[in-house]
Amino acid sequence: MADPRVLVAGATGFAGALAARIVHRHPALELARITARGDIGARLDSIYPRHRVPLALEELDLGDLDGFDAAIVAYPHGAAAPVVAALRGQGIPVVDLSADFRLRDLSTYGEWYGDHGAPELVDEAAYGLTELNRAAVAEAGVVANPGCYPTATLLALAPLARAGIVKSAVVDAKSGVSGAGKGGADYSQVAENVKPYGVDGHRHLPEIEQELHAMGATGPLTFIPHLLPLDQGLLASCYVELSRPLDAEELRGLYEGLYGSEAFVELVSDPPGVADVFESNYCRIHPRLEWGGERAIVFAAIDNLWKGAAGQAVQNLNLMLGLDEESGLT
Amino acid sequence: MADPRVLVAGATGFAGALAARIVHRHPALELARITARGDIGARLDSIYPRHRVPLALEELDLGDLDGFDAAIVAYPHGAAAPVVAALRGQGIPVVDLSADFRLRDLSTYGEWYGDHGAPELVDEAAYGLTELNRAAVAEAGVVANPGCYPTATLLALAPLARAGIVKSAVVDAKSGVSGAGKGGADYSQVAENVKPYGVDGHRHLPEIEQELHAMGATGPLTFIPHLLPLDQGLLASCYVELSRPLDAEELRGLYEGLYGSEAFVELVSDPPGVADVFESNYCRIHPRLEWGGERAIVFAAIDNLWKGAAGQAVQNLNLMLGLDEESGLT
Amino acid sequence: MADPRVLVAGATGFAGALAARIVHRHPALELARITARGDIGARLDSIYPRHRVPLALEELDLGDLDGFDAAIVAYPHGAAAPVVAALRGQGIPVVDLSADFRLRDLSTYGEWYGDHGAPELVDEAAYGLTELNRAAVAEAGVVANPGCYPTATLLALAPLARAGIVKSAVVDAKSGVSGAGKGGADYSQVAENVKPYGVDGHRHLPEIEQELHAMGATGPLTFIPHLLPLDQGLLASCYVELSRPLDAEELRGLYEGLYGSEAFVELVSDPPGVADVFESNYCRIHPRLEWGGERAIVFAAIDNLWKGAAGQAVQNLNLMLGLDEESGLT
Amino acid sequence: MADPRVLVAGATGFAGALAARIVHRHPALELARITARGDIGARLDSIYPRHRVPLALEELDLGDLDGFDAAIVAYPHGAAAPVVAALRGQGIPVVDLSADFRLRDLSTYGEWYGDHGAPELVDEAAYGLTELNRAAVAEAGVVANPGCYPTATLLALAPLARAGIVKSAVVDAKSGVSGAGKGGADYSQVAENVKPYGVDGHRHLPEIEQELHAMGATGPLTFIPHLLPLDQGLLASCYVELSRPLDAEELRGLYEGLYGSEAFVELVSDPPGVADVFESNYCRIHPRLEWGGERAIVFAAIDNLWKGAAGQAVQNLNLMLGLDEESGLT
Repeated sequence: MADPRVLVAGATGFAGALAARIVHRHPALELARITARGDIGARLDSIYPRHRVPLALEELDLGDLDGFDAAIVAYPHGAAAPVVAALRGQGIPVVDLSADFRLRDLSTYGEWYGDHGAPELVDEAAYGLTELNRAAVAEAGVVANPGCYPTATLLALAPLARAGIVKSAVVDAKSGVSGAGKGGADYSQVAENVKPYGVDGHRHLPEIEQELHAMGATGPLTFIPHLLPLDQGLLASCYVELSRPLDAEELRGLYEGLYGSEAFVELVSDPPGVADVFESNYCRIHPRLEWGGERAIVFAAIDNLWKGAAGQAVQNLNLMLGLDEESGLT
Repeated sequence: MADPRVLVAGATGFAGALAARIVHRHPALELARITARGDIGARLDSIYPRHRVPLALEELDLGDLDGFDAAIVAYPHGAAAPVVAALRGQGIPVVDLSADFRLRDLSTYGEWYGDHGAPELVDEAAYGLTELNRAAVAEAGVVANPGCYPTATLLALAPLARAGIVKSAVVDAKSGVSGAGKGGADYSQVAENVKPYGVDGHRHLPEIEQELHAMGATGPLTFIPHLLPLDQGLLASCYVELSRPLDAEELRGLYEGLYGSEAFVELVSDPPGVADVFESNYCRIHPRLEWGGERAIVFAAIDNLWKGAAGQAVQNLNLMLGLDEESGLT
Repeated sequence: MADPRVLVAGATGFAGALAARIVHRHPALELARITARGDIGARLDSIYPRHRVPLALEELDLGDLDGFDAAIVAYPHGAAAPVVAALRGQGIPVVDLSADFRLRDLSTYGEWYGDHGAPELVDEAAYGLTELNRAAVAEAGVVANPGCYPTATLLALAPLARAGIVKSAVVDAKSGVSGAGKGGADYSQVAENVKPYGVDGHRHLPEIEQELHAMGATGPLTFIPHLLPLDQGLLASCYVELSRPLDAEELRGLYEGLYGSEAFVELVSDPPGVADVFESNYCRIHPRLEWGGERAIVFAAIDNLWKGAAGQAVQNLNLMLGLDEESGLT
Repeated sequence: MADPRVLVAGATGFAGALAARIVHRHPALELARITARGDIGARLDSIYPRHRVPLALEELDLGDLDGFDAAIVAYPHGAAAPVVAALRGQGIPVVDLSADFRLRDLSTYGEWYGDHGAPELVDEAAYGLTELNRAAVAEAGVVANPGCYPTATLLALAPLARAGIVKSAVVDAKSGVSGAGKGGADYSQVAENVKPYGVDGHRHLPEIEQELHAMGATGPLTFIPHLLPLDQGLLASCYVELSRPLDAEELRGLYEGLYGSEAFVELVSDPPGVADVFESNYCRIHPRLEWGGERAIVFAAIDNLWKGAAGQAVQNLNLMLGLDEESGLT
């Protein structure tokens, strides 16, 4: 049987280009077409030599979607929704990398991104934080791939949140500049600097809150992202006020219970650096206790373009297509 | 009247070399001698071309301390104490950059640094966080110059701690590699990485706790340093649980009350980046409220080698010698 | 007598902002006004905190140039010429940082930059490589401040070129990204990379050739710039085929003869790194021989924003105004 | 038939650790044992998390070499020779990453590295620049894996050298810091800097000269390495004086003739950046002409740890063991 044929729409951004590379090298998928809104005709390997994807970029024709078995959409927020809708109209399973289907509440979506282009699809979309939502992803027609900050933060906090013991939390997050997208960071502003940003509200915050609340964490959350002079990598340092004290064994039990058999979550005994997970789909997590067990500190490190975007997208696609979840990612 | 003649002992480390440069360019001080434990005879500008200090390094002869009006000691922890004692024996005012005179409690000192080489001087040393301890510094014979992390953290928290409203605090600190000293950071381990370290206890923690408690903050403190891929610069992101809610005006009042007339503390309306204070003695602070005023977030950015070490050392020396506090630093 | 009042026009780019800072701190100049084409009303220290220039940006009104004793113009190529012409119309001495008055040949100018906005002024402009053209600069009404690559290259090669012994030369130049101007370099494209560019012709090449030929070097020149992952700094590695062999003493004699008494040129006995001259107006030069004296290798390191732009601009302005050439620059 | 069992001796340095990773993931090799001179008992993935090699480090017992079908030796220069000799004594094919078997002339070796530990093996060793010496590598019992600078330089120059038209050459090479080995580069010395080094003679120069002369290039060679603020990557910018002019077609013919069917050499139409070949075994080459065809400029970019060390080692091992040359490397 032929490998499923995958369309990557929006392949010139960082995440889309990486998605194209991962699909291209995937042993059980065929990269059928890559499209973009510019650079039509250029080969992707002329723009991203390192990814070595020899296909040429084409225009996306929503009237000609025959022959695709699945799609990864890496369009900007707002622009993705109509593309996803067209693909769903042809019954094509889609992983969407934008924020368009992440927020259940359309008014919250509207505050950050404006009018929604396909509100009718929001309810059927599964939130694609694979480890926390595997069953729904496997059944979904549309998967809303999480943002990079929510991925690290939610994986860090889920064992505590699901246990109902998160009273409040402070997330001090540190991200490399590729998270800002192509052209998002001027070298001279970033090098030899570190700076908090988005302190009056970051658009990833409602996404984190929505999912944490769904897990049972109802207290206040502070989320402060910082921009760092590195390209790929994201570290979430999470400081959690617990509603009851834990001991080390309980803490370990909670994390091993949830992640003990996960392929892409590594529980480690020392704080991780983002270099440990560079160019990989792994999330490294180190939980620890302070103040006699009344507070937990949890560090989670990911590569923002892999587990925080394109890698997790393929992980979700594998599930949707009935393939081995790890296929093409190790 | 001739300018005071200053000895810089230990001029080959990052902080000592910078101290030599600042003194050398100082309009009211004379850099009389620079000494080190190695590289004897080498000119400092051959080791640190950028500092442009044309003096040659000499051995430190503790039996020949005539002719110095003041000294800055930049020896490693433990090695500094006997040097400071010898200088004090000659009545020479000293700013010590090591940890040797920072901790009041000798047993705490012993846990981190071993036996103390001059315990009799500990009580007479003033803690040199200039803005918070100006009167004592001006009178002192020995000033214990604060560590870089304590400088940023204490400046960030002092207005709240002195008001008696710090119930607990989390300090997520981010430092460039020069804080680790010469040879302290292998490029390949640091570049494209960010990593927490010292999570089981950093030697700056007892220093921070000692000073915070002296100000009246008695609750628990979490302090997590992170190593960043940049050379100079330190950002302390402080998340403070308040014992009573504040409003924005009260918050502003506390910070302006303490720092409104300070030359080297800048209260800013947006979160600072460390590049804002690069190669300067300024500390930039941005306080804000969250959770309806129940929590404060305070960001403080310094250059770890300037305000966090050699710059503050000269600021203290200026005070001790009756000079303009800003002299040589702007 | 009051200090000369200086206008800095175009103060929001890297070079213009630095020029404003140097003038602002200059002991014998007054920074009278800073103008820009955008950000009107913003204080410069809100855009460049590190420069600490507290003036607000104004629009440049060419009809109201009263009260300025001198000007530094940091406009883009092409846009500078009419501004310079207006200032000259009021008799105001100008240092122009653009390429507009560097090239004697208008057709060459046209190939790279289009029509010239003030061709009548080209002949009266002095080429502002201070050490090589001091007398002309001191007399000039308009000084064309050299490009960063020409500054390093010409200082490296001048002693050989003036001796008439440059048969051919290869210049392999390495520049930090600030040379490309604000927004000129995306972090993700630059970090962990090094890449030649402009190999089919860089616009600094005709400037280098014009000046080298004027010194008597008539052979072929290869100039290959490379972009490096650093912000400020430029190294020119020059490989020179000599028309007759030299010995070490002759070589030293040529360089010391030309630069022995220069304040801002440092002849050093080891190859310089760009960090040696970071944030300074110095050019560090190390010449050496190879192949039995038939080839010379000359390394020249500058800070591209200082000696390669704003620093040299003030050095020239000092001369034009009869001030100490080093004033404000050390 | 079982996969050949490979020993990696010296797996804690950058190149040895990468060799272990490549062998570990290789579809047709088994990583049988990893040894080192320190860290015995530690798992390699605790030292190099990113490589994800789960084996523990053992001591190397030269008396117990049973059960290995091949070895990669990544010992320091001088220490490698006796290990290679012991392995050869058991008939085990070896790729040696040190300089110990690269230089044919023992007196030249002695000048740079001291006494040779296994001079009797020097003559039988093949020089492992795979593309230029494939037949000898395939037959050899010992392969001397080239240095990183020689790899890029020789691949860049071979088509011209073999055509007998290299009259002289200047190689301006730029390397990331991993080339200096573990602990070889202090962050504070490297960041925001670029600096030539080894100008009085680099130990890679005799290796380059030996091979170039063997190809027929007899003229003088200048080789100047520069250290850059990046981790992995090496660019050789080669400026070649030709003994007769070439036209573009001839130039292309020479390079395509030699490399047209090579898997790991990519001839490109624009100058390459080292990021193009990051974490790959490819060498990207861009040749061009200047001065009416009298000079050639050739840029060659490699990843110094891959094609310049461990990648090429496995490429050679593949050949020695009769495997597909690309196996495990794409």
